[in-house]
Amino acid sequence: MALIAILAGDGIGPEVTHEARRVLEALGLDHQFEPGLVGGAAYRALGHPLPPQTLELAHRADAILFGAVGDPEMDGLERTLRPEQAILGLRKALGLFANLRPATMFPGLEDASALRPEVARSIDMVIVRELTGDVYFGDKGRGHTKMGLREGHDMMRYDEAEVARIARVGFEMAKRRKKILTSVDKANVLETSQLWREIVNEVALDYPEVKLTHMYVDNAAMQLVRNPGAFDVVVTGNLFGDILSDQASMCVGSIGMLPSASLNEWTGTCGLYEPIHGSAPDIAGQGKANPCAAILSAAMLLRHSLSDEASAQRIEAAVIAAIGAGARTPDLGGTHSTSAMGDAVLAAL
Amino acid sequence: MALIAILAGDGIGPEVTHEARRVLEALGLDHQFEPGLVGGAAYRALGHPLPPQTLELAHRADAILFGAVGDPEMDGLERTLRPEQAILGLRKALGLFANLRPATMFPGLEDASALRPEVARSIDMVIVRELTGDVYFGDKGRGHTKMGLREGHDMMRYDEAEVARIARVGFEMAKRRKKILTSVDKANVLETSQLWREIVNEVALDYPEVKLTHMYVDNAAMQLVRNPGAFDVVVTGNLFGDILSDQASMCVGSIGMLPSASLNEWTGTCGLYEPIHGSAPDIAGQGKANPCAAILSAAMLLRHSLSDEASAQRIEAAVIAAIGAGARTPDLGGTHSTSAMGDAVLAAL
Ligand SMILES: CC(C)[C@H](C(=O)O)[C@@H](O)C(=O)O
Ligand SMILES: CC(C)[C@H](C(=O)O)[C@@H](O)C(=O)O
Repeated sequence: MALIAILAGDGIGPEVTHEARRVLEALGLDHQFEPGLVGGAAYRALGHPLPPQTLELAHRADAILFGAVGDPEMDGLERTLRPEQAILGLRKALGLFANLRPATMFPGLEDASALRPEVARSIDMVIVRELTGDVYFGDKGRGHTKMGLREGHDMMRYDEAEVARIARVGFEMAKRRKKILTSVDKANVLETSQLWREIVNEVALDYPEVKLTHMYVDNAAMQLVRNPGAFDVVVTGNLFGDILSDQASMCVGSIGMLPSASLNEWTGTCGLYEPIHGSAPDIAGQGKANPCAAILSAAMLLRHSLSDEASAQRIEAAVIAAIGAGARTPDLGGTHSTSAMGDAVLAAL
Repeated sequence: MALIAILAGDGIGPEVTHEARRVLEALGLDHQFEPGLVGGAAYRALGHPLPPQTLELAHRADAILFGAVGDPEMDGLERTLRPEQAILGLRKALGLFANLRPATMFPGLEDASALRPEVARSIDMVIVRELTGDVYFGDKGRGHTKMGLREGHDMMRYDEAEVARIARVGFEMAKRRKKILTSVDKANVLETSQLWREIVNEVALDYPEVKLTHMYVDNAAMQLVRNPGAFDVVVTGNLFGDILSDQASMCVGSIGMLPSASLNEWTGTCGLYEPIHGSAPDIAGQGKANPCAAILSAAMLLRHSLSDEASAQRIEAAVIAAIGAGARTPDLGGTHSTSAMGDAVLAAL
């Protein structure tokens, strides 16, 4: 029996997480669920986006099902108290350095993409994003120049251990797929990227069966538009990964369909699973959100943290079947409510 | 009579710049041209990608027509000697802080885009990228951690003067267009971005007629796929601008068509004009490159550095007419050689 922490968070987070939990419960697996407050919701109730009791729960749990954080009413708060700090804090506290973001076209949803159907149809990649280093966690601050001008700064940095462990995740992933790994950096400008490239090349020696290519981030952003189907696995740093993984998701068209996993090891003991979409405050509480990304995140949770590949595949098949049977939330051009979409997946299970 | 420096550089740089010069000469404007070595070509001849005599010419010239730099044979050189340092060095030495990158769909070329034609057709934006600050020019280096691990770092930073002057360029540009400005940052994570947002908001007070929106860079990368037609002017920092402007260019489909300007003032005294494409070593010397981006860069040169709007528009109309008459280089699905494409533009002039 495993303990699954449910951190639903803000906006549509609670709605979509509720459906994902229903699907998990329907599997009859006898896991235990424990909810915790996080994000703007936690700040409102307890004065901090990541309160100690939530952090304690996260440490205690075998896996975390996360909804979304973000609340426009808190834009005025200082950075360290804003809802986003909850997810950054959890990643850091749990050492969740490996973010896996599959971007795959769902049969029947080609029309949702802004790309030509023949381009969109070919998309089947995983972005492996480093999640606990880079300019996200370097020294940062505000100050004044010698001339008295206001300034702001953030240190971008990586060391070889940080790069090597995420590179290994990329290679392991590629080994299990089409054996094509694209490492993305900006080595023509950044020293951080030169180190990145050097270490990735060193790790590559252990994976002769994987074809490794290095690509500059600006070129990667172009190729993701021109020919996204050419990518298999992409490995990159925290900042570039933030940008490129969102771009890749949108190529698929329906960000309401895409899950993610954040792991602290290649075969994760603890992991955090969340839809890639945000809290979408504009449609919160209206039953319009697509729960599929949350449901598919639950599938990733079973696969990576609970080693239950069979249940993971059951859920994934049920989502594909529900879509195949015509179930569509508004983001997919349909009229299903959040719970009706959840029902459709449960029916297919 | 103005002095135009011709820095053709590497790969296809010389070929496309040659056509742009022919077009400029055909206008019969009595400008003077002076070539200089830059990039890998300069390193080969003189041991440095940006030799002193080229820098001197750049300072002396009224404007610079730049080709491309980059040479895979020099990938092994240390960063400071690589061809790319030439363009970074020129930007810094001449204070070219404002990079203007129009991304506009050319009538007749919708098929070149990976986006659906109805999405592609709506693209008409200018990206205003800061070009002399950010993580590109902060303190950078390689070293070792306390535990003896190799590390690499690059400081991201901006001060208020740097942000304010590029923000003004964005607002001025928006004022002359659809009056919609999107400022892109990552203020939920970066202190540099919080300063950026603060200063952009201050400058906005001087431009009440422009509608300003702030957008996170990951969201911007998504929106550029989902609905690029919604953007008018985008202003952003050096690194995000590098990524997003290349992404936007590829949405248009044919990066062989897109020019850019780098200015040291809103109404530039000196400026550098270059196609957005690179040196494309794979097709260099084969007469396959599309010279339109270089030719349109020459048009921007006339407009911004020589205040010759009429000639700029003549060139732009000639390129559109040549495309309209069916002239197509291989990148556009045709068989025109570089010089045949140049001829077609000259014929239309
Ligand atoms: C909310 C924000 C801090 C976060 C990030 O930038 O990592 C988000 O964009 C993500 O990708 O999970
Ligand atoms: C060549 C490289 C240093 C340069 C940059 O990153 O600025 C290029 O990508 C560009 O956009 O002009």
